[in-house]
Amino acid sequence: MTEPDQVCPIILCGGSGTRLWPLSRKSYPKQFAQILGDRSLFQQAALRFGQGGFAAPTIVTGSDFRFIVTEQLAEVGIRPGTILIEPEPRNTAPAILAAVLALVSRNPDAPDPIVLIAPSDHSIPDSAAFGDAVARGRAAAAQGKIVTFGITPDRPETGYGYLELAARPGADGAPVDLLRFVEKPEADRARAMLASGNFLWNAGIFLARASDLVAAFRQDAPDVLAPVERSLAAARADLGFLRLDPAAFAQAPSISVDYAVMEKAPNLAVVPFSAGWSDLGDWDAVWREQPTDADGVALSGPAAAIDCHDTLLRAESEGQVLIGIGLDNMIAVAMPDAVLVAPKDRAQDVKKAVDLLKARGQRQAETLPRDYRPWGWYETLVLGPRFQVKRIVVNPGAALSLQSHHHRSEHWIVVEGTARVTVDDKVQLLGENQSVYIPLGAVHRMENPGKVPMVLIEVQTGSYLGEDDIVRYDDIYARGQGAKG
Amino acid sequence: MTEPDQVCPIILCGGSGTRLWPLSRKSYPKQFAQILGDRSLFQQAALRFGQGGFAAPTIVTGSDFRFIVTEQLAEVGIRPGTILIEPEPRNTAPAILAAVLALVSRNPDAPDPIVLIAPSDHSIPDSAAFGDAVARGRAAAAQGKIVTFGITPDRPETGYGYLELAARPGADGAPVDLLRFVEKPEADRARAMLASGNFLWNAGIFLARASDLVAAFRQDAPDVLAPVERSLAAARADLGFLRLDPAAFAQAPSISVDYAVMEKAPNLAVVPFSAGWSDLGDWDAVWREQPTDADGVALSGPAAAIDCHDTLLRAESEGQVLIGIGLDNMIAVAMPDAVLVAPKDRAQDVKKAVDLLKARGQRQAETLPRDYRPWGWYETLVLGPRFQVKRIVVNPGAALSLQSHHHRSEHWIVVEGTARVTVDDKVQLLGENQSVYIPLGAVHRMENPGKVPMVLIEVQTGSYLGEDDIVRYDDIYARGQGAKG
Repeated sequence: MTEPDQVCPIILCGGSGTRLWPLSRKSYPKQFAQILGDRSLFQQAALRFGQGGFAAPTIVTGSDFRFIVTEQLAEVGIRPGTILIEPEPRNTAPAILAAVLALVSRNPDAPDPIVLIAPSDHSIPDSAAFGDAVARGRAAAAQGKIVTFGITPDRPETGYGYLELAARPGADGAPVDLLRFVEKPEADRARAMLASGNFLWNAGIFLARASDLVAAFRQDAPDVLAPVERSLAAARADLGFLRLDPAAFAQAPSISVDYAVMEKAPNLAVVPFSAGWSDLGDWDAVWREQPTDADGVALSGPAAAIDCHDTLLRAESEGQVLIGIGLDNMIAVAMPDAVLVAPKDRAQDVKKAVDLLKARGQRQAETLPRDYRPWGWYETLVLGPRFQVKRIVVNPGAALSLQSHHHRSEHWIVVEGTARVTVDDKVQLLGENQSVYIPLGAVHRMENPGKVPMVLIEVQTGSYLGEDDIVRYDDIYARGQGAKG
Repeated sequence: MTEPDQVCPIILCGGSGTRLWPLSRKSYPKQFAQILGDRSLFQQAALRFGQGGFAAPTIVTGSDFRFIVTEQLAEVGIRPGTILIEPEPRNTAPAILAAVLALVSRNPDAPDPIVLIAPSDHSIPDSAAFGDAVARGRAAAAQGKIVTFGITPDRPETGYGYLELAARPGADGAPVDLLRFVEKPEADRARAMLASGNFLWNAGIFLARASDLVAAFRQDAPDVLAPVERSLAAARADLGFLRLDPAAFAQAPSISVDYAVMEKAPNLAVVPFSAGWSDLGDWDAVWREQPTDADGVALSGPAAAIDCHDTLLRAESEGQVLIGIGLDNMIAVAMPDAVLVAPKDRAQDVKKAVDLLKARGQRQAETLPRDYRPWGWYETLVLGPRFQVKRIVVNPGAALSLQSHHHRSEHWIVVEGTARVTVDDKVQLLGENQSVYIPLGAVHRMENPGKVPMVLIEVQTGSYLGEDDIVRYDDIYARGQGAKG
């Protein structure tokens, strides 16, 4: 339940970009990756609202990411409010509106809540300062303003939109009325705006009463409001998620919240924020946010630099060293299945690498080796001509479907935790170091009845080892024949 | 047996350098790596002598590389003559002399053989042209000359030694007398030598009668001759290898054949060779030898270049893509456990990367994930807190030692070929898709009784998984307690 004076955060985490490839991929986008520190950006966003003054967050994400969301929240000990599944990406306006409406409909008798719309794919290192900024905006929001947050610029950035304020912000950081939104500028214009002091970067964060947001949509974007209302009315609960109705949601235009309502709304105010923010829009931006040594070298993982300057070297796996020698203004990101090397000033072109790999049909373009499923995750350790070895991790209480295969046998060896294994008519518990054989054609299931993750090594042998050789008899996640996992 | 008119090749493959890290490592040096094409440089050297006119090669290598040598020769279907093990690296003079003496002692009644001393860590793409050059040198060698091969230079290289000829080589490529050896020059001197036409690169390849080489050592390097003779007299046959006596060999000075005898010998002639040669001394040299596109980009493996120029991009594993964007005169080499990025003109500094990793105690400095043993090889697929998964490949007819462990149990699953498995008193044959469990403490052995390699997945569980937890009861390779494998 929401306390009357709590702000209700809405965390957006359905987006996916390509400019932080290979760390961020379509199957596991930027907000879920460990870009800064050992928490994902999504976890950092959720933890930002874990402090007092905030209700449990409402989360909007895509169907493919729903189990990443639940796993990452569990890791940091945060219990979400509603987790809303958008059937397809339609930019920010439909997603935000759906979350606001879902929040209101969940507590129809509660007072009009103040909501905070928060993207999860950027960095705000100082959570306390951010909490202060939210507090500074509260009164204005309570009086009917839509409060946006403007980042004090420290360079004439041409990659961000700006907010033009009616006056220079005061030292108290109190809200200032917004004059207008400014599109990404040319370099000259960016320098002039930086010098003026009346222009702040648009961080895409909003604080407002739910009723005022809905009213703005009713006024300026009724074509968004109607289908989103229908998609929520026809939404379907699914294992703790709330799935918006796909047919209705598809009728909403794909439009950003700025274009749909914010740029037309007369009641906007800006809270200035100067404690550090980055959209981490490309590897150059990541280099700016990571700690660097005296030579401007930022390292992460088992990476090392010899005579390098102003360079980012990221080794994303403990088992893979990355060495740069004599590099200047370069980026190198190493993962076990993909490596990127580029000058910093070509950081925007990383999407070309993804396009190239997609055109070649290489799976590294969009997917990580680790595959997340309702029950946990797996990764292929080695794929041979007639065999495959997988590591499978099953969450406590989770179960794979009851299934059989036409073309392969499987050996399962439990190496951590406890498994409950069904093979045809026999059910048995396997502890660490116990194994079982699943003959070709046998009906089988793997479950984790325990309280800790169960780790199992699976050795498959057979003439065809594709994920689609699966006959499903029963699935607690209600997936069909040939579906994966 | 050697035909009377055959040249006897001596292939040197005991060396190890650091400048082609990460592909070349101390445990698996350059000559055994696939640097150009899908054969190693050593295999290419052996195949060069696989044509008519050459006897089976005598091979000199280090103890750590002996099974790499036999496996790589088997792969290309070459049966070696003697494989001589040098107990420790003592530069080229003792190794060459030992091989010459071993060759003579093997056929004491045969006529004085003509030997060809051939390093295996360089590239000679045109084997036929090289065969012609050897043929051009034969008569001179038969008349008592020590024939060396001089590479026609195509650039003022400062990284090689030169040979000064008594006259400009003729169009017929006939041997020319050598005036003197010239050390690696300064740039000015290198340009002058290139312009003169009387200077060729010293490739370190020699053709001579065995008796003339031994005589040269007797004359100019008796301190090498005496201990090498003793080390050969006390040599010990071991599984098809001939191990030089370590105590005697250690008394030979560590000296190159050039310093020990060649620079003092009065009877040297040079056969010019212009059909292409490279010592592949660093990644810059490799870039020069690999095929490049119109932009000077050389790619190997699943690597791709976007807007790159004069750049080498090598992805050494099929499972790892490497993408370069906007690179100029750069080198990037990606392996699953190590990645190197450097400008081409820093190629000589790659050894600094190896030094740095050694100082940090990181195994990537010197060893590859794949570990070669008398019986085949293994690699770790995943190492967890209390488990490890390995892929083990056992050569036909080979056997691991009879052993037990104090701290781990093992599950073995055969995925290719057939295994004969001993567990305590029980011996059984396992085919593809069969498995066996080795309890902690059980005495066990794995053998491949078949005609094709046997591939097995081993899942270990236990509190300590180090290679030194091994009690050995019997070993066809005569290794002791705690020795690996």
